[in-house]
Amino acid sequence: MRSSLVLFKRFQTLFHTRLASSYVVQELQADQYGAPNEVLKLNQTTSIDASQLKPNDVLIKLLASPINPADINMIEGKYALLPSSLPATFGNEGVFQVVDHRASDEQVRPGDWVLPKILDWGKWRSYGIVSINDLIKIPSDIGVESAATLSVNPCTAYRLLRDFVTLEKGDTIIQNGGNSGVGQAVIQLGKLWNINVVSIVRNREQGMNELVDYLKSLGAEHVYVEEDLRKEALRKTLWSTIPRPKLGLNCVGGRATSDLLRVLDKSATLVTYGGMSKQPVTVPTAEFIFNDLNCRGFWMSRWKAENYKGSQFAQMLYELIDSIRRNELKAPHCEKFLLSDYKAAVEQAQKPLNTTKVLLTVA
Amino acid sequence: MRSSLVLFKRFQTLFHTRLASSYVVQELQADQYGAPNEVLKLNQTTSIDASQLKPNDVLIKLLASPINPADINMIEGKYALLPSSLPATFGNEGVFQVVDHRASDEQVRPGDWVLPKILDWGKWRSYGIVSINDLIKIPSDIGVESAATLSVNPCTAYRLLRDFVTLEKGDTIIQNGGNSGVGQAVIQLGKLWNINVVSIVRNREQGMNELVDYLKSLGAEHVYVEEDLRKEALRKTLWSTIPRPKLGLNCVGGRATSDLLRVLDKSATLVTYGGMSKQPVTVPTAEFIFNDLNCRGFWMSRWKAENYKGSQFAQMLYELIDSIRRNELKAPHCEKFLLSDYKAAVEQAQKPLNTTKVLLTVA
Repeated sequence: MRSSLVLFKRFQTLFHTRLASSYVVQELQADQYGAPNEVLKLNQTTSIDASQLKPNDVLIKLLASPINPADINMIEGKYALLPSSLPATFGNEGVFQVVDHRASDEQVRPGDWVLPKILDWGKWRSYGIVSINDLIKIPSDIGVESAATLSVNPCTAYRLLRDFVTLEKGDTIIQNGGNSGVGQAVIQLGKLWNINVVSIVRNREQGMNELVDYLKSLGAEHVYVEEDLRKEALRKTLWSTIPRPKLGLNCVGGRATSDLLRVLDKSATLVTYGGMSKQPVTVPTAEFIFNDLNCRGFWMSRWKAENYKGSQFAQMLYELIDSIRRNELKAPHCEKFLLSDYKAAVEQAQKPLNTTKVLLTVA
Repeated sequence: MRSSLVLFKRFQTLFHTRLASSYVVQELQADQYGAPNEVLKLNQTTSIDASQLKPNDVLIKLLASPINPADINMIEGKYALLPSSLPATFGNEGVFQVVDHRASDEQVRPGDWVLPKILDWGKWRSYGIVSINDLIKIPSDIGVESAATLSVNPCTAYRLLRDFVTLEKGDTIIQNGGNSGVGQAVIQLGKLWNINVVSIVRNREQGMNELVDYLKSLGAEHVYVEEDLRKEALRKTLWSTIPRPKLGLNCVGGRATSDLLRVLDKSATLVTYGGMSKQPVTVPTAEFIFNDLNCRGFWMSRWKAENYKGSQFAQMLYELIDSIRRNELKAPHCEKFLLSDYKAAVEQAQKPLNTTKVLLTVA
């Protein structure tokens, strides 16, 4: 048994050596901050010679990387976390496939799917070399869409529901931006964990019914438009059947947040994780004093910076992956673009009321 | 020894019986909510026959009771806690003296000072009967002004500094309304606990120097007007010598609160316990997400409702009383008015920029 394993390893090394060749690295970069369509350029930066990999180096190839709202903000230079210098490669998350490596055989194999867990390493690139210690291996049976969009939105939803209040079965939470990537994950995790999720979306002239139907297909039971929260009728219909929310999730700001506050339970927590309206969070003094409101913020990047080294990140991923396998957590609708077609991709990603996730990929 | 104690008790009972007589109860009441000067009336409600006291009953006489801003709000009907029915007697705190009682001799004696710890029992009354279980006995050597104003403002300051962040020696906190009753207590407790306290006050045309001098006489080291917080110079002068505040205390709202936010440390907590400007608390989304801001509220009445039964309230009072005795915690400037002179008292208490505490008392 032991000698056959050694033989297999020797064969593998031989096999790797044979495969070794040169890989052209294309990176979507900007050398100044500004409108993505103006500053982004696809640069052919280096070419990787796989035979030169050092110990623990893993050569990976892009499978798919989404364009998230935070990526746009970062390219515009309007984000709290910016590249240490320009030109820089952008892209905050994505799934890659192992091409070759010098790590010990048990850890990764060519073909494995991996998530690079380095915050300041842009994912919009065709190939890259990453240390085995900065990769999390994930199963390759969950679909590229799910894998590419796993580490930001579903993880944010997971932490929002777990880290701020203790939610028991039958408790209620309310969120605005219910159709956002995080919002869709909140709906599905809430259903999975037996929590009542009330989702608020912006009213729209076209596609409203389709949107509500889609959210209901994810398991949403309570979908309302912002205006509904200002109506007294909700007290009789909704709040007489489920408890008031212990937790409010805010990614909009401005009036949409005031609307959430109106219906929260006493001693509730409001967590702000986004500000789509570009309006601040305004809270009447009485809410803090007499209703014992607790207002917090959540930033997935800070959570990762604080938790990448421990086991919590991997544990969360594996729990989410299990849900994906059981079809309890679906990927958002995705539209794929080649890296080389980045102009069309960026344009599509910035369309208002867009609920489709744009994925960058390579041929 | 034992027989002499019995004899003493018998003598005491005899003595009490001799003292027993009728006490006229005057109560400052309103039978509708509105402007204090319009709705308050001094009613002669009952007369207490001390010989009719039941077991555990304690007959007490008002020494002094302040008019706090919350009292005004309550009379106006604009407070979260209102009397269960009208007409009601108002007044949220005050110190009384024991006149007579049917409690066991060891607990209270005539002449003892006591604080009634019943939230919905108005203190603006000449006499009253309270169960021994609803009284906290306090020493009578701390001055009527300190005793009358002990259970709201200094207790609020104590809880604000203790219950929200862990403050170490050398840490900084910042407060607006630095000249308020709570603000003055925060300055003194902060000094006592080796915390840097930055106090913000509203600019005023007259009396500014006197106000700053007064706050410095309490131990304030850093007093600024609101406008100073918007100036870049503060970064070089103040924030290069002491750390940024881990805790902000807000009793104003509106722009004054935005000014506080600007200078807080990352991951700071902002506690709102008042809203003098009647403006809401407005927080940019980025403060929550990227600076990890935590916004909370504090209401002394809720704390009391939750903690009256335990020993925490008495422990806090005794700690504060020790500070008063060592002259480390001074009473605010007080002005006394007879209950019968309530119209002048209420008018004085509502004057803008007033830093003198109005006390109601009886002849």
